[in-house]
Amino acid sequence: MRYAVLGTGVVGRTIAGKLDSLGHEAVIGTRDPQATLARAEPDAYGNPPYSRWQAGHPQVRLATFAEAAAHGEVVVNTTAGVSSLQALRSAGASNLAGKLVIDIANPLDASQGMPPSLDPVNTDSLGEQIQRAFPDAKVVKTLNTMNAQIMVDPARVPGEHTVFVSGDDTEAKGAVSELLVSFGWPATAIIDLGDITTARGAEMLLPIWLRLYGALGHTDFNFHIQGGHHSA
Amino acid sequence: MRYAVLGTGVVGRTIAGKLDSLGHEAVIGTRDPQATLARAEPDAYGNPPYSRWQAGHPQVRLATFAEAAAHGEVVVNTTAGVSSLQALRSAGASNLAGKLVIDIANPLDASQGMPPSLDPVNTDSLGEQIQRAFPDAKVVKTLNTMNAQIMVDPARVPGEHTVFVSGDDTEAKGAVSELLVSFGWPATAIIDLGDITTARGAEMLLPIWLRLYGALGHTDFNFHIQGGHHSA
Repeated sequence: MRYAVLGTGVVGRTIAGKLDSLGHEAVIGTRDPQATLARAEPDAYGNPPYSRWQAGHPQVRLATFAEAAAHGEVVVNTTAGVSSLQALRSAGASNLAGKLVIDIANPLDASQGMPPSLDPVNTDSLGEQIQRAFPDAKVVKTLNTMNAQIMVDPARVPGEHTVFVSGDDTEAKGAVSELLVSFGWPATAIIDLGDITTARGAEMLLPIWLRLYGALGHTDFNFHIQGGHHSA
Repeated sequence: MRYAVLGTGVVGRTIAGKLDSLGHEAVIGTRDPQATLARAEPDAYGNPPYSRWQAGHPQVRLATFAEAAAHGEVVVNTTAGVSSLQALRSAGASNLAGKLVIDIANPLDASQGMPPSLDPVNTDSLGEQIQRAFPDAKVVKTLNTMNAQIMVDPARVPGEHTVFVSGDDTEAKGAVSELLVSFGWPATAIIDLGDITTARGAEMLLPIWLRLYGALGHTDFNFHIQGGHHSA
């Protein structure tokens, strides 16, 4: 299948690489492809520049947000939460209409100090903002509650753990569940929280995720809902 | 040990009953003991009136917030989050000074509609508000992320799952951990998130907890941090 992956950070690279390895045709979208490729320095987190990753993945094409979204039958948002709406507007509403839009971003806001807080939060979520801004897209929030490596290789964390999905469109959530299974997630690990407003709860896991990173000293953990079966 | 348990709801009853069964001397605090005992109807959630629970626990005394807090060497806040600060002010700062105050409450706010949102949230928490209002108390947030039965009987949910602690005072958190172990929590299930500002993350689990309740149809689940060991 043809995928657009918006965002050139670690999450975008990891998702695009996994999609490619599964035989999908992935195009990564960015604001300015030439500028992205020109960067030679590691990013603020010490990740190598995009160009180095690109060199190892010649079959994954880099394009503008709009070109990538036009290519994709499915669009995956891995941009920073603060700029996700802008990136999706650059992608173009007509390039999102009728399509599954998988939102992995978190609206982390460092303007109030560290650790980041969330904006929006509590009575709104980024997932809902995207769905409202692009009512013809089928937005599904998922995978935003763990590090990028775990997203595409859940066995990296031994034992059972959970991936949440939120969205208004049942068929779109079914397609996301199939994709998650292809990533290695057991079907029993997937919990459908409900409509897109449940993205609030999934995004509000980030503050404790950040504190767990601080307390544990690593990010190779994930939330598991113990006892998380449906009542009989 | 002598405990004050502020709040006559299911959490207060369950904690007081467990403390009593462990040989502690528990006094439950409420705004108006006569009014609490006079209620003959189930509460809004269908729980039996307090008087019926009291009849089965004659050794647990009911008193005013202030009397209970004066009695307790440790004070446990199980009041509704919206009224916790008022309840603790009624208990009296002098009755909290120097004491461990275990905060189990969640600042759920139904004024924005259902499901409830949180107030405070994101850049503040109820745990922090209590610590700021009573700087001489040693506030530890814990147990607020699961139903009351699991708090005192973690084996009710099979498998490993997690209880978080947040607080500024290391010794106070150590005392809470000992109490949790006496409730049946394995020491390995307890994760110290850090100072009292980490209560934000623990309280922000409530929105997804409420949605999981809706999705699963029961509350006999708990969060487990899979891979939640310290890095080597």
